[in-house]
Amino acid sequence: MNAKQSEDSGCGSQATAGAQDDNLDKTLSKITNKLIVMSGKGGVGKSSFATNLAVTLAAKGFSTGLLDVDLHGPSIAGMAGVTGLLDVTRDQQVIPKTVGDRLKVVSMQSLMRDPDQAVIWRGPAKTGIIRQFIADVRWESLDFLVVDSPPGTGDEPLSVAQTISGAKALIVTTPQDVALADVRKSISFCRTVNLEIVGLVENMGPFACPCCGETVELFKSRGGRVTAETMNVPFLGTLPFDPQVVKACDEGAPIAASGNGGAFVEALDEVVQAVVGRM
Amino acid sequence: MNAKQSEDSGCGSQATAGAQDDNLDKTLSKITNKLIVMSGKGGVGKSSFATNLAVTLAAKGFSTGLLDVDLHGPSIAGMAGVTGLLDVTRDQQVIPKTVGDRLKVVSMQSLMRDPDQAVIWRGPAKTGIIRQFIADVRWESLDFLVVDSPPGTGDEPLSVAQTISGAKALIVTTPQDVALADVRKSISFCRTVNLEIVGLVENMGPFACPCCGETVELFKSRGGRVTAETMNVPFLGTLPFDPQVVKACDEGAPIAASGNGGAFVEALDEVVQAVVGRM
Repeated sequence: MNAKQSEDSGCGSQATAGAQDDNLDKTLSKITNKLIVMSGKGGVGKSSFATNLAVTLAAKGFSTGLLDVDLHGPSIAGMAGVTGLLDVTRDQQVIPKTVGDRLKVVSMQSLMRDPDQAVIWRGPAKTGIIRQFIADVRWESLDFLVVDSPPGTGDEPLSVAQTISGAKALIVTTPQDVALADVRKSISFCRTVNLEIVGLVENMGPFACPCCGETVELFKSRGGRVTAETMNVPFLGTLPFDPQVVKACDEGAPIAASGNGGAFVEALDEVVQAVVGRM
Repeated sequence: MNAKQSEDSGCGSQATAGAQDDNLDKTLSKITNKLIVMSGKGGVGKSSFATNLAVTLAAKGFSTGLLDVDLHGPSIAGMAGVTGLLDVTRDQQVIPKTVGDRLKVVSMQSLMRDPDQAVIWRGPAKTGIIRQFIADVRWESLDFLVVDSPPGTGDEPLSVAQTISGAKALIVTTPQDVALADVRKSISFCRTVNLEIVGLVENMGPFACPCCGETVELFKSRGGRVTAETMNVPFLGTLPFDPQVVKACDEGAPIAASGNGGAFVEALDEVVQAVVGRM
């Protein structure tokens, strides 16, 4: 891709904790809006939504960064169509991959030589690597940073929330009860760690049969809206289920960039406008 | 439910690590087959499969336990239709809830007074609680223990794998590439920690439109079978997508127990027979 090798010189020594804090402040100070995309439960389409959100923001003219800090199941690089390992400068700064004119992508995936290797991180090691990974990326100025956080309410989302000061949360769910039970935990988590919630997005909504047009509720319906109202969180909209979204993510060609995404892309655009309006 | 308060007396003191190991050995020695249901990625229907597997094993006449050790998103109690808090004896042993004649259920959910509260566990605390939770359950004799492990390859599945000696893994995936990338990590994880793999189950397979009968591949197709063959792991079968499975789990009435599950239950029965044949 377009990432160029830096000419900066560096001493090559390990950054101290203090230097890392300086790096972190410097990195974050250049970013206007920081969004952490979260879900209580895995498999609700969080990474796919984060990717399509970042692509849409870039298409709207915002300079946008997309960061994946999922240590166990990083998938953003593949979904955004980014291949190869990331370049690292001599002073240990990570250079994002660029996609199109305004989107920069950094994924844990792009630091692993063997993508099938299971990285068995214990808790404290995770916190350190997440902090370092956010501090040491050379984003330059960004209008939006979209962070795809690991699901749940454990070490990883906690480290992300504590590291990115001034960030706001976007919570993704599917409509069924078992996902909503976990979403209520996510909302309680955000409130516990003082993370402002931009709103709730309901993914995998109604599916229209491509043969007869019948609408089927694969994962039930309206649960996201009702939960948002009950928990007093803004509801940002429902995205319909479309197998093309799954396929497009697998192929590294996000549907938001295809110019041909039908009802899903229309609904996504409304959600993104709601997000921008709330920043 | 049928769980009765124990009359055992106990000193009420904290169990020492040694006593906990004794408890663990005693608990596990009474269980013939231990199955850990895993997934690389969340949201592939792992908990739903674990519940339906346990219900089917019990229906086949096996005395079966179903244990949920997902600290952040426990869902087994709700799916199995178990309500209320678990009874704990005076010597701190947990009494499983019983469902029907041969199924006993223990879920982290049934220990939490406020189900919407996010429990922000740090890594080392997780390992301790998981170990304790497995050691301190009074299962009595079981033909099968089905453990619903948290997704991924982090602290939690590692603690589960290390705590339950002699356990074997069942890996659940959906057919799309982004899930399969994580499944390859799960397989590598099992091999790293010497956990024998019984096989791979492909969930959320083809969906038949209830209106016109058209079959739609919601999450692509055949990815599970191909991955199993490539990674040299037994392939146990594909379960079709059926919104009734989602609905039944939300309602705490697993479809395997309904006597009216159509193609899903037929496919599930073949998978369960394959599992039993491999123990």
